[in-house]
Amino acid sequence: MPLKYRQVFLEAFRKLPQRVLWKYEGELQDLPDSVRVNSWLPQQDILAHPNVKVFISHGGLLSLQESIFHATPLLVLPIFSDQPRNAMFVENSDIGRMLVWDELTVDSLVDALTDIINNTKYKDNVVRMSASLRDQPTTPQERAVFWTEYVIRHRGAPQLRCPAAQQSWVEFLMLDVVGLLLVVLLLLLLLIHRLLRALSAVLFSDYSKKKTA
Amino acid sequence: MPLKYRQVFLEAFRKLPQRVLWKYEGELQDLPDSVRVNSWLPQQDILAHPNVKVFISHGGLLSLQESIFHATPLLVLPIFSDQPRNAMFVENSDIGRMLVWDELTVDSLVDALTDIINNTKYKDNVVRMSASLRDQPTTPQERAVFWTEYVIRHRGAPQLRCPAAQQSWVEFLMLDVVGLLLVVLLLLLLLIHRLLRALSAVLFSDYSKKKTA
Repeated sequence: MPLKYRQVFLEAFRKLPQRVLWKYEGELQDLPDSVRVNSWLPQQDILAHPNVKVFISHGGLLSLQESIFHATPLLVLPIFSDQPRNAMFVENSDIGRMLVWDELTVDSLVDALTDIINNTKYKDNVVRMSASLRDQPTTPQERAVFWTEYVIRHRGAPQLRCPAAQQSWVEFLMLDVVGLLLVVLLLLLLLIHRLLRALSAVLFSDYSKKKTA
Repeated sequence: MPLKYRQVFLEAFRKLPQRVLWKYEGELQDLPDSVRVNSWLPQQDILAHPNVKVFISHGGLLSLQESIFHATPLLVLPIFSDQPRNAMFVENSDIGRMLVWDELTVDSLVDALTDIINNTKYKDNVVRMSASLRDQPTTPQERAVFWTEYVIRHRGAPQLRCPAAQQSWVEFLMLDVVGLLLVVLLLLLLLIHRLLRALSAVLFSDYSKKKTA
């Protein structure tokens, strides 16, 4: 993380009354007493703790899922890939807020965190979302056991295997299709080349005729 | 059903030792004693009967599903839509056979039916497929009850509703997108028109110059 962002976070955390757990790989100078840094933290155990008020995350799908499961509001600072989309989801469903790195300041960070911690709507919404996420007809463990035993019961259940596993690498990479398309493309280019040459021949012969005329 | 096909079926049924239940809306003359015709038959009850040897069907998806569920081999005569695909599935998974209407004769029909009835592989395969189809972690009834109650528990569960229901008809029919594409297309056509006119002007002026030269 660039130094300027690190300073913004440290400044903001200094201004908050809450304590902060920070997963960070590296040395940090000048830590406020309220901040504890570790190169690894048990993310799910912490998210599950009832006193945790907000999870500051880059918005990866698994972090998002774990945060919703444990009903912890989020502050998302997306970096790339699906993270901006996930951050928008958090913002639109009012289970937290999103900040953009380029506009990150101590004030915007303190404002966003204070809002998430004090405005109960974020917690209420994520509690409701967590309930509808946890409410499933079977548990993940039951499903894992059922389908493992299913495969054993039905002789390996070949109907569940991906048909691509049966294909040769020529079929899988669609080399035959690509090959045909390349041939068509080459023929088209050849045709255009011939047409342009014929056209230019006509035009040049006109030109030379005019010159000699 | 055209008369010629009806005759083929009646002839074939006459040659088989088995009895036939035929769902047919209309009068049939000259019925063999082994054939019973009705304008409606309880398809699932019949398919579930252990003495039923083969189901002759056009290969609609629901008939296919019911036949596999009740472990009855099929003879499929597909007509259109997904039926040829379903018929191919029956043929490829060896749970029955497929015949093409254009090539339907008394002999091909008797051959196919005799093969399905006497060759045990079709029955064996469909019994195995039926078992893996019925083997589910929850019954359809349990699922229907669970998700109905789920919607009640979670205030109508808006997250399960199709987002398209929220869109205006302009958005739903993508009129804005279609409109933009039409404008681009029109501009392109206009451009091509102008270019061709300019080109023809050059060519014609050359031609007239040459004539006067």
